[in-house]
Amino acid sequence: MRTSIATVCLSGTLEEKLRAAARAGFNGVEIFEQDLVVSPDSPETIAELARELGISLDLYQPFRDLEGVEEAQFEKNLKRAESKFQLMARLGIDTMLLCSNVGTATIADDGVVVEQLRRLGDLADRYRVNIAYEALAWGRFVSEYDYAWDLVKAADHPRIGTCLDSFHILSRNTDLARITEIPGDKIFFLQLADAPALTMDVLSWSRHHRVFPGEGAWDLSDFLTRIAATGYSGPVSLEVFNDSFRQGDTNRTAVDGLRSLRWLEASIADAPAAGTAGEAQPEVPSSALDLQPLPEVEEPRGINYVELSTNDLGALTRQMHQLGFQFIGYHRSKPHVQLWLRGKARIIVSEVTEEAGTTSAPVNGTFLRGIGFEVTDSQSAMERAALLLAEEVPRDQTHNDEVLRGVFAPDGSEVFFHQFNQTTPAWIKEFGHDHDEQVSHIDHVNLAQPSNHYDEAVLFYTSLLALHAQSSQDVPSPSGLVRSQVMSSTDGSVRMPLNVSPQPNAEAVAGRGIGSVVEAYPEHVAVACEDIFEAAATALSRGLDFLPVPQNYYEDLASRFDLDPEFLQQLQENHVLYDRDEHGEFLHFYTSTIGSVFFEMIERRGDYLGFGAPDAPVRLAAQHRKNAQHSA
Amino acid sequence: MRTSIATVCLSGTLEEKLRAAARAGFNGVEIFEQDLVVSPDSPETIAELARELGISLDLYQPFRDLEGVEEAQFEKNLKRAESKFQLMARLGIDTMLLCSNVGTATIADDGVVVEQLRRLGDLADRYRVNIAYEALAWGRFVSEYDYAWDLVKAADHPRIGTCLDSFHILSRNTDLARITEIPGDKIFFLQLADAPALTMDVLSWSRHHRVFPGEGAWDLSDFLTRIAATGYSGPVSLEVFNDSFRQGDTNRTAVDGLRSLRWLEASIADAPAAGTAGEAQPEVPSSALDLQPLPEVEEPRGINYVELSTNDLGALTRQMHQLGFQFIGYHRSKPHVQLWLRGKARIIVSEVTEEAGTTSAPVNGTFLRGIGFEVTDSQSAMERAALLLAEEVPRDQTHNDEVLRGVFAPDGSEVFFHQFNQTTPAWIKEFGHDHDEQVSHIDHVNLAQPSNHYDEAVLFYTSLLALHAQSSQDVPSPSGLVRSQVMSSTDGSVRMPLNVSPQPNAEAVAGRGIGSVVEAYPEHVAVACEDIFEAAATALSRGLDFLPVPQNYYEDLASRFDLDPEFLQQLQENHVLYDRDEHGEFLHFYTSTIGSVFFEMIERRGDYLGFGAPDAPVRLAAQHRKNAQHSA
Repeated sequence: MRTSIATVCLSGTLEEKLRAAARAGFNGVEIFEQDLVVSPDSPETIAELARELGISLDLYQPFRDLEGVEEAQFEKNLKRAESKFQLMARLGIDTMLLCSNVGTATIADDGVVVEQLRRLGDLADRYRVNIAYEALAWGRFVSEYDYAWDLVKAADHPRIGTCLDSFHILSRNTDLARITEIPGDKIFFLQLADAPALTMDVLSWSRHHRVFPGEGAWDLSDFLTRIAATGYSGPVSLEVFNDSFRQGDTNRTAVDGLRSLRWLEASIADAPAAGTAGEAQPEVPSSALDLQPLPEVEEPRGINYVELSTNDLGALTRQMHQLGFQFIGYHRSKPHVQLWLRGKARIIVSEVTEEAGTTSAPVNGTFLRGIGFEVTDSQSAMERAALLLAEEVPRDQTHNDEVLRGVFAPDGSEVFFHQFNQTTPAWIKEFGHDHDEQVSHIDHVNLAQPSNHYDEAVLFYTSLLALHAQSSQDVPSPSGLVRSQVMSSTDGSVRMPLNVSPQPNAEAVAGRGIGSVVEAYPEHVAVACEDIFEAAATALSRGLDFLPVPQNYYEDLASRFDLDPEFLQQLQENHVLYDRDEHGEFLHFYTSTIGSVFFEMIERRGDYLGFGAPDAPVRLAAQHRKNAQHSA
Repeated sequence: MRTSIATVCLSGTLEEKLRAAARAGFNGVEIFEQDLVVSPDSPETIAELARELGISLDLYQPFRDLEGVEEAQFEKNLKRAESKFQLMARLGIDTMLLCSNVGTATIADDGVVVEQLRRLGDLADRYRVNIAYEALAWGRFVSEYDYAWDLVKAADHPRIGTCLDSFHILSRNTDLARITEIPGDKIFFLQLADAPALTMDVLSWSRHHRVFPGEGAWDLSDFLTRIAATGYSGPVSLEVFNDSFRQGDTNRTAVDGLRSLRWLEASIADAPAAGTAGEAQPEVPSSALDLQPLPEVEEPRGINYVELSTNDLGALTRQMHQLGFQFIGYHRSKPHVQLWLRGKARIIVSEVTEEAGTTSAPVNGTFLRGIGFEVTDSQSAMERAALLLAEEVPRDQTHNDEVLRGVFAPDGSEVFFHQFNQTTPAWIKEFGHDHDEQVSHIDHVNLAQPSNHYDEAVLFYTSLLALHAQSSQDVPSPSGLVRSQVMSSTDGSVRMPLNVSPQPNAEAVAGRGIGSVVEAYPEHVAVACEDIFEAAATALSRGLDFLPVPQNYYEDLASRFDLDPEFLQQLQENHVLYDRDEHGEFLHFYTSTIGSVFFEMIERRGDYLGFGAPDAPVRLAAQHRKNAQHSA
């Protein structure tokens, strides 16, 4: 599949955009007119740069407000088009995007529009330019893809085809059935964008909130399958207007974009998505888009371990001991690495000392360094990750150790692919241990996300680990709303709430690799146990610094749920918070924070599937008070 | 007018919120339940704190999902209400907000709802609590204020009244005529919020985008006038859910909120707004809300001067000379202050040297320090500003000098009120000059705004200077979208585009007073002249460092407008950019940036009213390249 990206997706100068697209691995770009207008580089220089970089210039866009106008205006428009055709010749671009008229159309007469398209086609033919006519969702008269196609068909001109843009089509909820009516060679261009499900005016939605495929709410596999069925063989191009991408790191956004296309391509390469129920399955001619699969990955079976880095080993391991974790041993070949277990909850603690850093990353406090995911085929998961452009974690490994490979997530944490096939993982023996005692496991891991890489993170976990984005939620905190997005596997064995802190300027914890920062939102590991009160009693007896829960909370709890007063008292005495839904109950307590990490101990009763969302503001407020005390 | 604010408007802990509300000068607060639930302070402690601070606790809110339910559920709901009544007694709050049922209502039967309201009233009576029943815009069955009032009227219970919230009413565009049917003493509470005109689902609009009165698109003067006409005499309270306010500085947001109420109050204190055309003018009983006026202010007549601070006097004055400014003299009593004129465009240059800082503010580069506005009554403008809680600029003044007083704007720049009544301002004599030569004036001043204080800035200029917010615009730049909001006087003699930079983390220029920062978006002074080409020729001959304009721009210009090739060449040779609309033409060039300031020279032909918006991306891209070169 030939991949392309509109320069408007990326930040920076036109030169920076081209370099980033090429570096990520795109085959081509669409030149967004304004990027050229503001550039000091001549069209010839841009064309030369593209040649050097080995990318094609696939499209010049947009040309606006041509058709459906009075003759005098149309003649002016043709002149305007001609000057752009001349410019395109200098750029070496043979396809122009023509958007349906938004601003100046006055004549809602198909005959006039068809005739004007045809005349544009004649002019374009002199410059060997193809015109891809696209229905904008907010076009004055033409706003549906199939209407644009009807007009193109009626124009019946070799230089006039259509452009399909998933945003303009899916945002209007138009029936997709007619896509396959269009012969593939009359689709002159294809643009893809995903979008979150928002209820707002379509223009604002389009201009600010588009995202890359896999980062939104739409089924682009189905969409692309239908396009493939037409025989279309041109580039599949991203056109994504997104406020965050426009101000993000250019190279990073380009990688994110290409990852989305590779993932999407693979999703239909093997298993063409079914069309709408009742329709015949569209046939995918294998030759058309030349779709490349990826090594397949199944959903992870669980979190094998979490690795914490610390320069405060005493405080961290004391807290883990208080929570019932047992020290197992030091890694046989890494003298600064310890293993702690609580049943199947495994925490690797890497001590980072000033003298002997075990890592090349900058050292700062205690932070979550990485997660080991249990996958059914670790080798192909790693191959897939590499093809999805994830950066591999450099690893110092002695040849006797189990080969664990991993990549960096967008938040800088390390994602390791651990082979799922035995009760006790082989690597545990490297710490001299091979049996479990308590019934306990890692229930979920709560990760802080840099605010501008939220969508990238969703795609990352979706495409590399086959996790699913649940609905997102805003959690009030004293310093603003925290956006929380749970990524999980279907059976819930892997659950990761991703949290975007409201304070991008707050102090950063620069512990993680690849220079990224964890913002001032603490992360945590939630450990499931069988008996929360037993765990709390142990913790209490060992002197755990519980996160304090206000009396007001328990009073409110009493009014919300009809709880036995003794039970309520037991909750309060043990600093345990409580939630309930129609499926079951959730009991949990939090520890104080060390560096940027704390723990949560939880007990799920029945089939409660949530995370105690009503309690999150209580936790955030308590942590805010603790921070304020520290800085006072 | 008694003023109040919901704690949910503000960031921080409950204690911090109460202190900020009191410090700003509010009479009371609404306690938002969650703020109490997460607080370690007991209800008694909160009540005691409010007493100490001299503010009342006006409302406990919200109580949800009571009415329109089956009997068994209703009994549970009554129990839940009773526990809240007990809590309110401990807080000393006598009014509870009851929101129309969103989640659990199953019975759309007025009789059932009325009966349940009445039974709640009976229970409330035992605790001497009043219930203010409010129609949420997204209520299951009850979503209109007049329907809620009909139910309250039918319940006919002394403890049951209604709560009117401008958001829930105006967001639905409900006819306001029936407000005056409600007796003022049955309106148990009044909540105000403004909002920008957005087309989105009302729940998201309400939860994230409310703003204080005067910061949005609604006519709250009319709304409050209608309420006043009912005889309502309770608090006028702000309930504003806003993502930025939630994470902003608590004290600052509280001041912003109270300013909005004082401004709104004054707007109807003197001149009750007319109702909808055709209706009888509602009468305002002067006793009801006890509305206090403010000293009136008319729109400013012009920008009298702009003051720039610099530690690079040579570069700045060289550039001003190149632009045709004349050095007039030093201030007679301030040896570091120069005056430069170009016709009526007056620039005061304050040199800040390391040895002899003329200011107590931190010194950093060249920045826009303040603007002198010509107002018809400078004394009352200053009094008004003080009553609107603006902070006065400390001023070192010898007793011979004209008394100029001013305040700090939200962006830290100084706003001075200059008496408009003579051709040549009196203060100019302090520099030994009293006549003008060239026809030239300050056309507009472009200010950078800290991103979280955008709404505050709009209200500031609206309420203090009677400027008007024009529609806002997003301008693409290589580092993201710049949000641009023009504030102007009706006749255009004062025009100020406010710009919010997309890069909150970019390097800050900390030059301005009150510790605020100007973000990395340069500000500029646009000077109008009679002949742009003459100005450009002078500048060229004096060696001005023009901001470069790409060749591609002129080629695009040629395709957009039918320009004479010679004229086009003249534009290009003079680095002049060009725009045109149906009213006239706009010709302009930019200088390079010194510190965080640059100049624009403009010529308006005909009645062109804009600012060359299509050219702004060209400028931003050129400045981006210059920055990149500097940092490379």
